[in-house]
Amino acid sequence: MAYIDLNSDVGESFGNWTMGDDAAVLTSVSSANIACGFHAGDPSTIAQTCREAVASGVTIGAHVAYRDLAGFGRRFLDCSPTELADDVLYQIGALEAIARAAGGTVAYVKPHGALYNTIVTHEVHAQAVVDAVGAFGGDLPLLLLPGSVALTAAERAGLRGVAEAFADRAYNPDGTLVSRREAGAVLHDESEVAANMVRLATEGVIIARDGSILNTSAESICLHGDTAGAVSMAAAVRRELEAAGVGIRSFV
Amino acid sequence: MAYIDLNSDVGESFGNWTMGDDAAVLTSVSSANIACGFHAGDPSTIAQTCREAVASGVTIGAHVAYRDLAGFGRRFLDCSPTELADDVLYQIGALEAIARAAGGTVAYVKPHGALYNTIVTHEVHAQAVVDAVGAFGGDLPLLLLPGSVALTAAERAGLRGVAEAFADRAYNPDGTLVSRREAGAVLHDESEVAANMVRLATEGVIIARDGSILNTSAESICLHGDTAGAVSMAAAVRRELEAAGVGIRSFV
Amino acid sequence: MAYIDLNSDVGESFGNWTMGDDAAVLTSVSSANIACGFHAGDPSTIAQTCREAVASGVTIGAHVAYRDLAGFGRRFLDCSPTELADDVLYQIGALEAIARAAGGTVAYVKPHGALYNTIVTHEVHAQAVVDAVGAFGGDLPLLLLPGSVALTAAERAGLRGVAEAFADRAYNPDGTLVSRREAGAVLHDESEVAANMVRLATEGVIIARDGSILNTSAESICLHGDTAGAVSMAAAVRRELEAAGVGIRSFV
Amino acid sequence: MAYIDLNSDVGESFGNWTMGDDAAVLTSVSSANIACGFHAGDPSTIAQTCREAVASGVTIGAHVAYRDLAGFGRRFLDCSPTELADDVLYQIGALEAIARAAGGTVAYVKPHGALYNTIVTHEVHAQAVVDAVGAFGGDLPLLLLPGSVALTAAERAGLRGVAEAFADRAYNPDGTLVSRREAGAVLHDESEVAANMVRLATEGVIIARDGSILNTSAESICLHGDTAGAVSMAAAVRRELEAAGVGIRSFV
Repeated sequence: MAYIDLNSDVGESFGNWTMGDDAAVLTSVSSANIACGFHAGDPSTIAQTCREAVASGVTIGAHVAYRDLAGFGRRFLDCSPTELADDVLYQIGALEAIARAAGGTVAYVKPHGALYNTIVTHEVHAQAVVDAVGAFGGDLPLLLLPGSVALTAAERAGLRGVAEAFADRAYNPDGTLVSRREAGAVLHDESEVAANMVRLATEGVIIARDGSILNTSAESICLHGDTAGAVSMAAAVRRELEAAGVGIRSFV
Repeated sequence: MAYIDLNSDVGESFGNWTMGDDAAVLTSVSSANIACGFHAGDPSTIAQTCREAVASGVTIGAHVAYRDLAGFGRRFLDCSPTELADDVLYQIGALEAIARAAGGTVAYVKPHGALYNTIVTHEVHAQAVVDAVGAFGGDLPLLLLPGSVALTAAERAGLRGVAEAFADRAYNPDGTLVSRREAGAVLHDESEVAANMVRLATEGVIIARDGSILNTSAESICLHGDTAGAVSMAAAVRRELEAAGVGIRSFV
Repeated sequence: MAYIDLNSDVGESFGNWTMGDDAAVLTSVSSANIACGFHAGDPSTIAQTCREAVASGVTIGAHVAYRDLAGFGRRFLDCSPTELADDVLYQIGALEAIARAAGGTVAYVKPHGALYNTIVTHEVHAQAVVDAVGAFGGDLPLLLLPGSVALTAAERAGLRGVAEAFADRAYNPDGTLVSRREAGAVLHDESEVAANMVRLATEGVIIARDGSILNTSAESICLHGDTAGAVSMAAAVRRELEAAGVGIRSFV
Repeated sequence: MAYIDLNSDVGESFGNWTMGDDAAVLTSVSSANIACGFHAGDPSTIAQTCREAVASGVTIGAHVAYRDLAGFGRRFLDCSPTELADDVLYQIGALEAIARAAGGTVAYVKPHGALYNTIVTHEVHAQAVVDAVGAFGGDLPLLLLPGSVALTAAERAGLRGVAEAFADRAYNPDGTLVSRREAGAVLHDESEVAANMVRLATEGVIIARDGSILNTSAESICLHGDTAGAVSMAAAVRRELEAAGVGIRSFV
């Protein structure tokens, strides 16, 4: 039987501001990337999200970010490697205490936003993230874009790097994502997306936008939950995967 | 042989701003109340302070506070008990991860500033702090003002409440601190202060400012390190305690 | 002809988090209480809101608050009067620069949330707000709850205090608002609310929940825009006022 | 008679953390770059600093920065030009309100830290800063590094760009600063530095570290005040300039 992990960002409300329909998303995914307070997620939001994840049997991951509430962690911040490693360690620890109080635990780390994108190529920040995960202990896996330098750094440090695919994004024939600046970069057709993801889970391939077939090492599929359409698509992907006999479970 | 704990606030720098002479203070105390980022203490300051505490053999405590960097945690914030408990749990967890990476662990909790003063009388906030400490696990003791409602709440929850005395503060005959608004509230004579603390450690009494003798349950003495005079007084207190045959060790 | 002002809170998004349907609200009101960055409102949100207010011919007010993003300014913060006055002055100035760049100007000040509620009775914080408004210059009016000590302080300082009524709140026979903890505190029937507000604008009275008739000095009506229902009610109130021949215009 | 401006960063305390000896620095300079709250400077610090600047007859400038308290504005932040322009405008406005309440006004703008360094070469951020200054109105001059693209952008927008020299930094023969990573980058000899600055003010030249003579358009000299040595050097530079018959006055 084939298995795949489905992950999504949750816990991104902050104080009086809400974001996404976490309760709905948690019915579709097996892994929850929970914001840790630096780009989103006040402690009470984190606590509520951890309780919901535990109640749903969803694995908890630390969605660590640059310190940038005003920019939602989407802006590169040129911090020193020491600052970055300490910021990441702080975030994982804060989440771990809250997750444990909810009956869970932090089982992996997925960088958020600009940090995620930066460590695809930025060796120093990639190493700082890996250092923080190593310093936290427990050999947590890192969930990353395939081909990122952070994957290499993780493996060099004896940590497991887990690659993910993006359900609603078109791929170039070289395996990179079609830039959001290009038409057709984001896919909106639920059945097309779901069919692609079934193929990924059962055959280990992604169909690029020119029709070419890409082998992929992705062990997880990233879904979104920030709009009603995204929630519906997440549900569709899970439904079609299960209909195809694919088991949905965490990569941990 | 008599023993007493000496505690002091450290790790209260933030980014480019420094505060106190932590390295010097850590040579005098047995317990370090380390700021957790909500009133002071960025993650790299916390990490550096944890490494120094571990190197000095000083026990690490979580110096938790209201979320108020601009006010240094010295202003009452009327947050809900849920918000407060989650904020406190977040802070303990963040510090724990960094302490562990430095080879230490969080061994107790001491609320800071306005939170410390508030839970002397504020039942709801006192309970929220106790709830957070309980939720963190490990039955960490709480370091508090004698007579505070938080001490009662801690004991009701099965946690240990540890009372502390203030080396450089004058006491009223009823055992309360002389208000800082009154003359003579703060003591500056090193030998007087040191003699008082030797008496506390060896006889279990404090001399009030009218000369009356107060029994005290204090198991720790709070010292300061934010000025050169404070650092010198901390060293004098330790020196005189040791000269009197008192062992300096953590209450944990 | 009778006139009344309609005011609403806008500009309360922050970074990636949105709140309320400002564009819709601005078609109903004559005065916009624009968040100034301390409880909500990043500079780009403020700028966008100022441009929309100017385009809609809506008067701009500074919605000043305690420094508390995580609590959305809804938590009392026990800051010193100097801190509060300086914080308020800072906020008004920041908004003024952005309003002027958009072709507008700050024409009044309305405290937000916990600050609004606090200065109903807290003499020291009330005076600090009045001091800040005085220090800003231009004799800006303060929009407040009738009977608040801040109104008295404003008038003592030679500033105009403008009282407001709440469209969707039930009133006690003594003129105070029915507490939100009681059933029936918030009114949901658009035609009942609109009829009440027409009576206020044309006869200067509010009907309390026991049917008694209260004279009111309110020169403005506070509407909400944070839910779809609130936006609809705001539109209904304006429509019915205009149908009754009441002109909608700023109190400035 | 020759004249020159002396400028220094002040108002960089934050809450309970102090930085620099502003009172001493303000006796030496003619222009005060006052922090605006985004990298340093809470509103009460700003207010106190403005009062001191006005009392000392020192011209007030807005020391605007990226939003980064934890990094003291020394880290590049990849914000959008809209965000940056709005952030800068917000800061200038906040300072202007406080300066006016103190009897002064914002007379120029000097970007801080990473923003200052970035707009030497970053066209988009340079233009955003210039746009904000233009939007604020009053044609405020911008104080910048000679040769920076922001100077060009300012002049293209009809604003005055004012170049500054650094008293305590060594220069390369091409007019750039010797990198702080190289030995000898920072000058510590008060009489050497003062003699250099007298030459600059009277002859319009700087001596590079290889002895070559550089013509400079600098109309202001940047001094520091963050250490006791820096305060002493600032006083020495002023003393020697005055002894050489150079008048110290703002460039505005």
